[in-house]
Amino acid sequence: MQFSAAQIAMLINGKTEGDPNATVSNFGKIEEAVAGQLAFLANPKYEEYLYTTGASVIIINETQELRQPISSTLVRVPDAYTAFATLLTKYQEIEAQQLTGIQEPSYRAKTAQLGDRIFIGAFAYIGENVIVGNNVKIHPQVYLGNNVRIGDNVVLHPGVKIYHNCVVGSNVTIHAGSVIGSDGFGFAPQTDGSFKKVPQIGNVEIEDYVEIGANVAIDRATMGSTVIRTGAKLDNLIQIAHNVDIGHHTVIAAQAGISGSTKIGSRVMIGGQAGIVGHLQIADGARINAQSGVTKSIKSQGGAVTGTPAYEYTSALRSQAISRNLPDLEKRLKELEEQIRQLCP
Amino acid sequence: MQFSAAQIAMLINGKTEGDPNATVSNFGKIEEAVAGQLAFLANPKYEEYLYTTGASVIIINETQELRQPISSTLVRVPDAYTAFATLLTKYQEIEAQQLTGIQEPSYRAKTAQLGDRIFIGAFAYIGENVIVGNNVKIHPQVYLGNNVRIGDNVVLHPGVKIYHNCVVGSNVTIHAGSVIGSDGFGFAPQTDGSFKKVPQIGNVEIEDYVEIGANVAIDRATMGSTVIRTGAKLDNLIQIAHNVDIGHHTVIAAQAGISGSTKIGSRVMIGGQAGIVGHLQIADGARINAQSGVTKSIKSQGGAVTGTPAYEYTSALRSQAISRNLPDLEKRLKELEEQIRQLCP
Amino acid sequence: MQFSAAQIAMLINGKTEGDPNATVSNFGKIEEAVAGQLAFLANPKYEEYLYTTGASVIIINETQELRQPISSTLVRVPDAYTAFATLLTKYQEIEAQQLTGIQEPSYRAKTAQLGDRIFIGAFAYIGENVIVGNNVKIHPQVYLGNNVRIGDNVVLHPGVKIYHNCVVGSNVTIHAGSVIGSDGFGFAPQTDGSFKKVPQIGNVEIEDYVEIGANVAIDRATMGSTVIRTGAKLDNLIQIAHNVDIGHHTVIAAQAGISGSTKIGSRVMIGGQAGIVGHLQIADGARINAQSGVTKSIKSQGGAVTGTPAYEYTSALRSQAISRNLPDLEKRLKELEEQIRQLCP
Repeated sequence: MQFSAAQIAMLINGKTEGDPNATVSNFGKIEEAVAGQLAFLANPKYEEYLYTTGASVIIINETQELRQPISSTLVRVPDAYTAFATLLTKYQEIEAQQLTGIQEPSYRAKTAQLGDRIFIGAFAYIGENVIVGNNVKIHPQVYLGNNVRIGDNVVLHPGVKIYHNCVVGSNVTIHAGSVIGSDGFGFAPQTDGSFKKVPQIGNVEIEDYVEIGANVAIDRATMGSTVIRTGAKLDNLIQIAHNVDIGHHTVIAAQAGISGSTKIGSRVMIGGQAGIVGHLQIADGARINAQSGVTKSIKSQGGAVTGTPAYEYTSALRSQAISRNLPDLEKRLKELEEQIRQLCP
Repeated sequence: MQFSAAQIAMLINGKTEGDPNATVSNFGKIEEAVAGQLAFLANPKYEEYLYTTGASVIIINETQELRQPISSTLVRVPDAYTAFATLLTKYQEIEAQQLTGIQEPSYRAKTAQLGDRIFIGAFAYIGENVIVGNNVKIHPQVYLGNNVRIGDNVVLHPGVKIYHNCVVGSNVTIHAGSVIGSDGFGFAPQTDGSFKKVPQIGNVEIEDYVEIGANVAIDRATMGSTVIRTGAKLDNLIQIAHNVDIGHHTVIAAQAGISGSTKIGSRVMIGGQAGIVGHLQIADGARINAQSGVTKSIKSQGGAVTGTPAYEYTSALRSQAISRNLPDLEKRLKELEEQIRQLCP
Repeated sequence: MQFSAAQIAMLINGKTEGDPNATVSNFGKIEEAVAGQLAFLANPKYEEYLYTTGASVIIINETQELRQPISSTLVRVPDAYTAFATLLTKYQEIEAQQLTGIQEPSYRAKTAQLGDRIFIGAFAYIGENVIVGNNVKIHPQVYLGNNVRIGDNVVLHPGVKIYHNCVVGSNVTIHAGSVIGSDGFGFAPQTDGSFKKVPQIGNVEIEDYVEIGANVAIDRATMGSTVIRTGAKLDNLIQIAHNVDIGHHTVIAAQAGISGSTKIGSRVMIGGQAGIVGHLQIADGARINAQSGVTKSIKSQGGAVTGTPAYEYTSALRSQAISRNLPDLEKRLKELEEQIRQLCP
C-alpha cells in the first residue's frame, strides 16, 4: 500500500510541511530510513537525523524547531510518537482486514461452525463441533481440537495448537508454536515406585483481549478450568500449569513459570524467568522481580518481592548488597576475634 | 457418551442411593457441577456442597454421613477419589479407542510400516522406513523422520516432531510442540574465533511408559543415544541436552534443563526451572529443589539440594535464613567493633 | 550407504591395517559398536575396547600401540578424533545433497522465487514474494510468511515458523519448532489499568553461519531489526526479545533469555538459564555464568560475571563460599558478643 503525506496528515489530524504528494510505502527508523519510507521524530536526542535521513515523510511534533533545511515532507502533530503508533495500528488493521478466505488444503470438520470474514491458512486443522467467530485469522498449520470455541477478532499465528474443549474469547492474539490445553502434570505415586497418570479432564479458558507470545505452554485443568483473564499479556516460552488462574491485565515476562492451582491477582507484574510454586495466592498489583522464586503467597496489594526464595523487595536488596561484601564482613570478624584474644589471653 | 448412575456403580463396584436412572454425560467439580454432570466428594472440607450441588450423580465414600437431604443420586464406594480417577481413566480409554483411521491429506512414505487400529491425523508426516506399532494415535501435524520407530499404545499430540532414527517405546505420550532428536549443541572453537559444528549422529531413545509435556526439546546424542528411561515423566518446556540419561520413574518439573552427558538416576525429583550442568552423576532418589543450579554430582542416594550453586538442603536453608538477616548481623558486628574500640582506645 | 575401509582411508588420508575390504554402513561408539559399524579410538581411557569391540573398522591414532591382537580393520591417521569428525561431516553433506525435490501437498505462493536444488517437504508453507536461495532444505510443516528471504545452503527443520519480512542469511540451520519474528512484547499502560499493544513492525535478520536450536523464540523489532550476527550459535528454548542484537560468534546455552534492545558483543558466552535485562550493552568476549541475572552492562572485554544480580566472577565466588558458612559466621559473632559481655558486664 502507498500513502501520500496528505493522506497520512488526514489519518492523524496533522499538517503537512513540504511536498504533500510525497509518497511512502513502509516504515523506517529516522536514522536508517530511505526514500519511500515514513519515519517519526519524538526524542530530541535524534534531531540530528532529521537533516540527514532519507525518509520521504516524517511525523514530527508541532513544537519542533528546525535548525537546518530538510528535504523530507513533514507532518506536524501535537504528539509525534502517539500519532505514529496510531498510524501503525490503523495500517495493521487495514492489512489484516484484507486477509480473508480459505486456503487449501486445510481440514475443516463438517460439524465446525465458521464465522464471517475469516481466514483459514493451508494445513490448518479444525476439529468436530468447533465454533469460530467473525473476523478470525487462523494461520497455516494451526490445530483446533474438537469442541474448541473461538470468539471474534482472534488471531492465531502459524502452528498454534489448541486442544479439545478449550475456550478462547474475543480480540485474543496467540503467537506461533504456543500450546493451549496440554495435560496438566499430575501423577500419583504408586507403591512400586512408578507413577500413575491422573486424568486431566478440565480445559483452558482464555478471556478477551489476551495476548500470548510464542512457544508458551498452558495446561488444561485436572477438573474445571485453567483461566487467563481479560487483558492479561503473556510473553514467550511461559509455563502455566493446570488450574492456574491469571488475573485481569496481569503481565508476565518471558520464560516465567506458574505452578499448579496458583491464583494470580489482577494487574500483577511478573518478571522474566520468575517461578511461582503451586497453590499460592498472589495479591492484586503485586510485583515479582525477574528470576525470583516465590514460595509463599503475597498477601499485600502491590507487594514487591525478589530473590530465591523471594521476600520483600527493599530488605532483600539490602541483604543482597551486604551479601556481596561478605569477604569484608568476615575479615572484620576475624580482626575482632584477634583483638579479643589479645584482651583475654 | 451418557451413563446412568447404575452403569457407573457397576463400573466402579459401587452402590447407588437415590434414582439409579439419573444420567450424566460429563464431569464437574462438586462446587460448580450442574445437572447432567458427575461429581465426587472425597475431601470433608467440601461437604457443604453436597447439599447445594447441581450434579446429577455424586461418587462418595461409604462412610460419609448425610446431615441434610440431597437431590443427587449417590454412588457409594470405599474410596471416592480413587474410584473417580478409575472412572476417568476408563472414560478416556473408551474415548481414545474410538479414535482410529487415517485423515487426508497426510503423508505416509511407502516404506513405512503401520500397525493396527492406529489414527493418523491430517497433515501428519511419516518418513521412510518408519515403523509404528498398534493402537498408536498420531495427531495432526506430527512429523516422524526417516527410520523412526514407535511402539504400541503411543499418543503423539499435534505438532510433535521426531527426527530421523529416534526410537519411542510403548505406552508413551508426548504433548504438542515437543521436539525429539534435534542436534546436540556441539561446536568446536576455531583459531579464528568462529565455531565449527560437531556432527550429531546419535539418536534419542524413549523407553516405555514415559510422558513428555508440551514444547519440550530433547537433543539427539553426538554418538550413541540420549535416553529417557521407563516411567520417567517430563513436564513442559524442558531442555534435555545430548547424551543425557534420565533414569526410571524420574520426574522433572517444567522449564528445568539438563546439560550434556549428565546421568540422572532413578526416581529422582527435579523441581521447576532447575538447571544441572554437564557430565554429572545424580544418585537414585535425589531431590533437586526448584530453580537450583546443580554444579556437582550428587553421590548419596536420596540426597536433597537447593540453591545456586546447589548444596545440601538443610544447611542451605539455614544459610538462606541467616542471609535474610544480614543487615542485622552487620549491625551486631558494628556494635562489637565500637565496644572493642572503647575497650582498647 | 556402504563404505570399505579402503574408501574411508582415502577420504581421510589414512592407512589401512587389516582387511581393506571390510565394509561399514553406519557409526558406533567403540564400546558398543557391532559388525558393520565404524568406530574411532582417540581417548586412551577406552583402549581396552579396542580388543573387544565388534566394529568392523576403527579409526585410530598413528601412534597407538597394540597390546593384543584385534579383529577389526584399522585406519591409522595423525589425529583420530579430527579425522572421524571430518568423515562425519562429509557423510552428512553427501546425505543432505541427496535430499531435493518438492513433496506434495505443500503450499507455494505463485510469487515465491525458489532457488536450485532445494527440498520442500510436505505441508510446508511458502508465502507471497518469498525468495529462497540454492541448496535450501525446507522440511515438512515449515512456515515462511510473506516477503521472507532465505539465503543459500539453509536448513529449516520441521515446523520452523518464520513470520513475514524476516531475513535469513546463508549457511544457517534452524531446528524444529523455533519461531522467528513473533511480535515483540510491547504494551503501553492505559489510565484504566489495561494495556494497549504497541505495533511491532520491524523484523528479524539472521546473518550467515548461524545455528539456532529447537523451540527458540526470536521476536521481531518494534521498528528496525532484531539481529543475530554471523556465526552466532543458539541452543534450545532461548528467548530473544525485540530489538536485541547478538554479536558475531556469540554462543548462548539453552533456556537463556535476553530482554529487549540489549546489545550483546562478539564471542560472548552466555550460560544456560541466564537472563539479561533490557537496554544493556555486553562487551565483546564477556562470559555470563549459567543462571546469572545480569542487571548492568558489562563494559570490560572478556568480563566474567555470575549470580543474581550478577557481579564479577571471582569476588562473587568468594561471597558465595562465605555465604554457605553463614551459620558458622553467626556462631562466631555470638561467641564474641558473649566474651564482650563478660569483659564489660
